[in-house]
Amino acid sequence: MRISELAETTGVPVHTLKYYLREGLLMPGEATSRTRSEYGAEHVERVRLVRALVEHGGVGIAGVHSILAALTAPPPSRHELLGVAHCALPTPGDQGPVSEEVTALVADLGWPVWPEAPALRALSAAVSAARDAGVELSPDSLRRYASAMTEVAAVDLDVALAAESPAAAMHTVVVGTVMVDPVLVALRRLAQESVSARRS
Amino acid sequence: MRISELAETTGVPVHTLKYYLREGLLMPGEATSRTRSEYGAEHVERVRLVRALVEHGGVGIAGVHSILAALTAPPPSRHELLGVAHCALPTPGDQGPVSEEVTALVADLGWPVWPEAPALRALSAAVSAARDAGVELSPDSLRRYASAMTEVAAVDLDVALAAESPAAAMHTVVVGTVMVDPVLVALRRLAQESVSARRS
Repeated sequence: MRISELAETTGVPVHTLKYYLREGLLMPGEATSRTRSEYGAEHVERVRLVRALVEHGGVGIAGVHSILAALTAPPPSRHELLGVAHCALPTPGDQGPVSEEVTALVADLGWPVWPEAPALRALSAAVSAARDAGVELSPDSLRRYASAMTEVAAVDLDVALAAESPAAAMHTVVVGTVMVDPVLVALRRLAQESVSARRS
Repeated sequence: MRISELAETTGVPVHTLKYYLREGLLMPGEATSRTRSEYGAEHVERVRLVRALVEHGGVGIAGVHSILAALTAPPPSRHELLGVAHCALPTPGDQGPVSEEVTALVADLGWPVWPEAPALRALSAAVSAARDAGVELSPDSLRRYASAMTEVAAVDLDVALAAESPAAAMHTVVVGTVMVDPVLVALRRLAQESVSARRS
C-alpha cells in the first residue's frame, strides 16, 4: 500500500507517518519509484504500536526508541526479559536516591529486587512527592498497596509467559507494562466508587 | 516571609512562584508596601501542593484549578466526596464512548458505578489502546486486575475516612488519588521483578 493508504488504515495522518520515518520509529517502505514507496502489514503493526506508546502510554521519542530496540533484539532467556524491559521503559522520577523508607519496605516484604532497579528510585520519589502534597503514606498502607500490586504482577507474568515466542513475550512485557498502567488507573477510580457505595 | 524566603523554604524558584500567583494557583500575600508582600504557612502548604500536582501528578493548570476549587469548597457529605473528587481529577482518555466490553466487565463484577463516570470512558480508551498496541486483555485478565484494584481502593478509602475533617478527607481523596498513581506504577514494576524471581 502507499503512504496515503497506510494513513487511512491506521488513522495516523501522513505528516505524522513522515515524522515517524524521519525519527526512525517506522522502517522505510520498499521504494517502487523515486517518489513512491510500498508499505505492508509490518508497517501497519509498527505504526499502531508507536502511536499507542506515544499517545496513550505517554512515552517520549527516546523511550519509544529503547522499547523498539528491546523488541527487535529479544534477550536469550525469559528470565532476563523483565530486566531488559524495565531498563527500556521510561520510569518517571528515577533520578533521585533510594530512600531508607523504601529500602525498609522492600526488605520487610522480602522482595528479591535488584538494588539498582530504576523503580526503587521512582518509588522513593513518588512517596516523597505524595508527602510533599500532604498525603502521608504509612508503612501499613504501603504494604497493602504492595500486596495488591503483587496480584497485578501475577496477571502480567501469566499473560507474558503465555506468549508463543520470546519475541512475543518481550512485546507483552514491555508494551503491556506501559499500556496497562492507564487501565489500572481507570480501574482504581471505578473500584473507589464501588467500594465507597458498598460501604455507605 | 518574603517571596524570596518562600522560594527558599519550598525549593520553588521565585519566577515559578510569580507564575503561580498570575495563574491564581497561589493566593496573594499580604501587601506590606507597594512592592513587597508577606507570605505565611498557608502559602508554603499551597506551593507544595501545586508543585506536587504539576510536577509529579502530571496535572495541567486547568486540572489544578478544579482540584483547588474542590478543596476550598468541601461537599456536605463524605458520600459525595468521591464524586466531586473524580469530576475534578483529570482523567486521560475520557472523551470517547464506553465500550460494550467495559460495560460487560462492570456488570460482571457487580460494581455499582455511575454510568456517566469519566473512568468508564477512560477504561474503554485504555483497553482499546492496549489492544491497538498488540496487548490483548482477556475478560479474565481484566477481572483479576479489577480485583487487585479493589484492594487498592480499600486502602484509599481507609486513609480518606481516617481524616479528621471533611476538608482533610477531600484533600486525601483528591490529592491521594493523583499522587498515589505513580507509587502504584513503581510498585507494579518491583512486584513484577519479585514475582518473576520467585517463579524462576
